Amino acid sequence: MTAGNKSSDDRPDTATEPLPGQQVRLGVDQPLALDCGMEISNFPVAYQTYGELNADKSNAIMVCHALTGDQFVAESHPLTGKPGWWNLMVGSGKTIDTDTYFVICCNILGGCLGTYGPKETNPETGKPWGLDFPVITIADMVRCQALVLDHLGIDKLFAVIGGSMGGMQVLEWASMFPDRVFSAICIAAASLHTAQNIAFHEVGRQAIMADPEWCEGKYLVQGKNPTKGLAVARMAAHITYLSDQALHRKFGRRLQDRDALTYGFEAEFQVESYLRHQGITFVDRFDANSYLYITRAMDYFDMAAKHGGILANAFKGTPVRFCVISFTSDWLYPTEENRRIVHALNAAAANVSFAEVESDKGHDAFLLDEPEFHQVLKGFIEGAAEHWSNDEPEPGGAE
Amino acid sequence: MTAGNKSSDDRPDTATEPLPGQQVRLGVDQPLALDCGMEISNFPVAYQTYGELNADKSNAIMVCHALTGDQFVAESHPLTGKPGWWNLMVGSGKTIDTDTYFVICCNILGGCLGTYGPKETNPETGKPWGLDFPVITIADMVRCQALVLDHLGIDKLFAVIGGSMGGMQVLEWASMFPDRVFSAICIAAASLHTAQNIAFHEVGRQAIMADPEWCEGKYLVQGKNPTKGLAVARMAAHITYLSDQALHRKFGRRLQDRDALTYGFEAEFQVESYLRHQGITFVDRFDANSYLYITRAMDYFDMAAKHGGILANAFKGTPVRFCVISFTSDWLYPTEENRRIVHALNAAAANVSFAEVESDKGHDAFLLDEPEFHQVLKGFIEGAAEHWSNDEPEPGGAE
Repeated sequence: MTAGNKSSDDRPDTATEPLPGQQVRLGVDQPLALDCGMEISNFPVAYQTYGELNADKSNAIMVCHALTGDQFVAESHPLTGKPGWWNLMVGSGKTIDTDTYFVICCNILGGCLGTYGPKETNPETGKPWGLDFPVITIADMVRCQALVLDHLGIDKLFAVIGGSMGGMQVLEWASMFPDRVFSAICIAAASLHTAQNIAFHEVGRQAIMADPEWCEGKYLVQGKNPTKGLAVARMAAHITYLSDQALHRKFGRRLQDRDALTYGFEAEFQVESYLRHQGITFVDRFDANSYLYITRAMDYFDMAAKHGGILANAFKGTPVRFCVISFTSDWLYPTEENRRIVHALNAAAANVSFAEVESDKGHDAFLLDEPEFHQVLKGFIEGAAEHWSNDEPEPGGAE
Repeated sequence: MTAGNKSSDDRPDTATEPLPGQQVRLGVDQPLALDCGMEISNFPVAYQTYGELNADKSNAIMVCHALTGDQFVAESHPLTGKPGWWNLMVGSGKTIDTDTYFVICCNILGGCLGTYGPKETNPETGKPWGLDFPVITIADMVRCQALVLDHLGIDKLFAVIGGSMGGMQVLEWASMFPDRVFSAICIAAASLHTAQNIAFHEVGRQAIMADPEWCEGKYLVQGKNPTKGLAVARMAAHITYLSDQALHRKFGRRLQDRDALTYGFEAEFQVESYLRHQGITFVDRFDANSYLYITRAMDYFDMAAKHGGILANAFKGTPVRFCVISFTSDWLYPTEENRRIVHALNAAAANVSFAEVESDKGHDAFLLDEPEFHQVLKGFIEGAAEHWSNDEPEPGGAE
C-alpha cells in the first residue's frame, strides 16, 4: 500500500543521488516568508505517503519527524537500508492503520533528504548554501508542510502526530492552523527548549564546528566532510535519548569482546562500542550543517514567548482535540514539560487527553514497542475518528 | 598558615614552568606496582599542605580531588589565578579547620599539575609519555597517596575526604588501608561507574581523539594541542555537573548581549556562552591526555567487582568511621548510588552516617556554599574527633 515508488513531481536540483519517493517544488508563485525575515522560493520538499487518500480527502494524517528522522516512516531507508523509523506504528493493521488512513510525512525544511536545506544549491551562487542558508524555526517547518497539504489538495488533516521535535511541530500546527487540524497528538515533547536542552545541543554544534573538515560550513564546496565532529555530536545527543536504566539493562558494565579489562583506550565496555557505532553510522545518512540548523530551530522553540509569555494564548479558543503523551523515564522532555502543555491547553479550555506512560526506555520510548503507549494512541485515534465523522459535514454538505 | 611556598623536595623533570608547592619523588627504593601490571619508579608527586602537623602526627586530613581538580585546595591556582577549589571548605575557622588540622592534597597519579602522568617524561625515550603511560586506576591513585603519607611520616589519617572522584578514592582508602584511616567521608560519589557515566566520558574521549591536533596522543612532541576537542569534552561533562534546575535558574532562555533572536550560530543564549567559556578556560589548565587517563580510571572503578561482586566485602570488619553524603539534585552520582554504598557498609557492620542533602545545585553542590552540607560535615568531624582522642593511645602509650 506504500506510495513510495510513485513518480515524483520533480527531482532534486543537487548533484546527489536521486532519492525514492515524491518531491514537490513549493513557493513557485509566491515565496515562503520565514521567521528570520528571509524568503525562500521555488524550493524542493520531499515527502512520502502511505495508504490511499479517500474521495473526500478526510483521512489524512500528517506525521512530523524528529531531529534525525526523515520521511521514510514505514519503508526501508534509502541510504541505510534499515526499516522505517516508525514501522511499528504505521502500516496495514497497525496503530496508525494505512488501510484506513492516508499518511503523509515530509522531510523537514532544513533537512537533508530531499527538502530544502543547507546542502541544497543556493541559486544565487550555484553552490551549496552552507551557513548562508536562512536559519529556520519549527514554525517554518510547519508552514512548509501546510504548503504540501495545499499541493495535495487536502484542506484539513484528520490528525497531526509526532514525537520529540515532531511533537513541537504538532503544537505549531494546532496553533497556526487550528482549522486545518482535527486532532493533534504530541508525544514526548515540550513547549520550549530548556537551558539544559540548549546546552546539550550546543555541545553537538561545537563538536561539529571544532572539526577542521567543517571548513566554516563550506565542506561540500571543498570536498570535505566533518564526520568526526558530527559523530561526537550524535554520541552526546544519543545519551539523552536513553534512560540510565535502559543503558544499564542493555549494557551495564559488560565488556566488549573480552573477558577482563585490558587497560587501554579501545572500546572496552559494550556501551562505548555501541555509542561509537551510533556516531559512525549516523554520518552516512546525515548532513552536518543540517544538524546545526535543526538543533538551532529546536533551541529557538518557545511557544509561550510568541504569545505574550502565556502558553495558553497559543491555543485560545482552539477547536482541535489534543492528545499529549509522556514517558516516565524520559529525562530529555520529562513529564513535567509535557504537563506544562496540558495545563496550558486546560487553561485554553481545549479538549485534551493526557497520558504519562510507564516506561524505563527513556525518550526513545516513542519509537519503540511500548504496548501501553500504542493502546493509548489507538484509543485516542478511534475516539477522534467517531467525533470526526459526526462533527464534519459529509461531502456535499448534508448538515 | 598555608605551606604552599615551602621549598619542594624536588622539581618536575619536564620542561614545564615550575609550580609552587611541594613535590616528592616516590618509588625510588621500590617501584610502585600498578593494577594494569606495570610498575613505575622514581616518579614525582606534587602535593600541598595547609595547617600544621601536630607533634604526634594525629591531625592529618587527606583531601582527594575530583577529575579536574588539583592540589591547590585553598589557595590561588598557579595557572588561572582563581581561588582554590575548596576555599569554602578548608581554611582557618572553616568546616575543615586548618587551625586544628593538617590538610594534605596530592595531585593524583595521571594528573597534570606536577604528579606523574602522560605529559611527564618517559625515561626510556626522553619524550613525554603520551599514550604509552600506563593506564591507572583509582586504587593506583590511592597507593600513590599512601606513599606520600609514608614520606611525611604519618601512620594514620584522622580523616580522608573527597567528593565525586575524590569520594571514590576515599572508598579505596578505607578498603585498602583500613588501619591508616580513622574516618572516611565520601561525598557525591558512587561505588562504580554506570553505563551512562561511561557513556558521557566516552563522548569526551572521542571529542579529544577526533581533534587532529591530538596526533594519536603525541601532540606534545609535535608541538600541537587538541584544545578544541578538549573544550568539547569539558562542555559535555560540565552539563552533567549541574542540575536542570540550576541551569534554568542561572540562565533559563535568556539571551547573551542582545534583546532578540538574531537567527545565527553565535552564542545567542547565555547558557551557550557560559558553556563555551567553560570549555575555553579549561584547556589552559588541563592536559588532554590526562583527561583521557583520569576518565578511564573512573570508568574502570567498580569496588564490588574487585571483591567477588559483593560491595560489602570491600569493607568487611572495617574499623573506619564512615560518612556518606549525597545531594538530591545530583543526577551524575545520584542518592541511589550513594545509598548503595551505605547499604554495603551496613552489611559490613561498619559505623556509618548518611545524609542526603536537599539542594537544587546538582553534582557540583559539594563545591558550593550549601549550609546544610557544611553543617552535616562539621558535625561528623566533631563527633569523629571526640572518638579519635578517646580511642587512640596518647603518644607514649598511656592506655
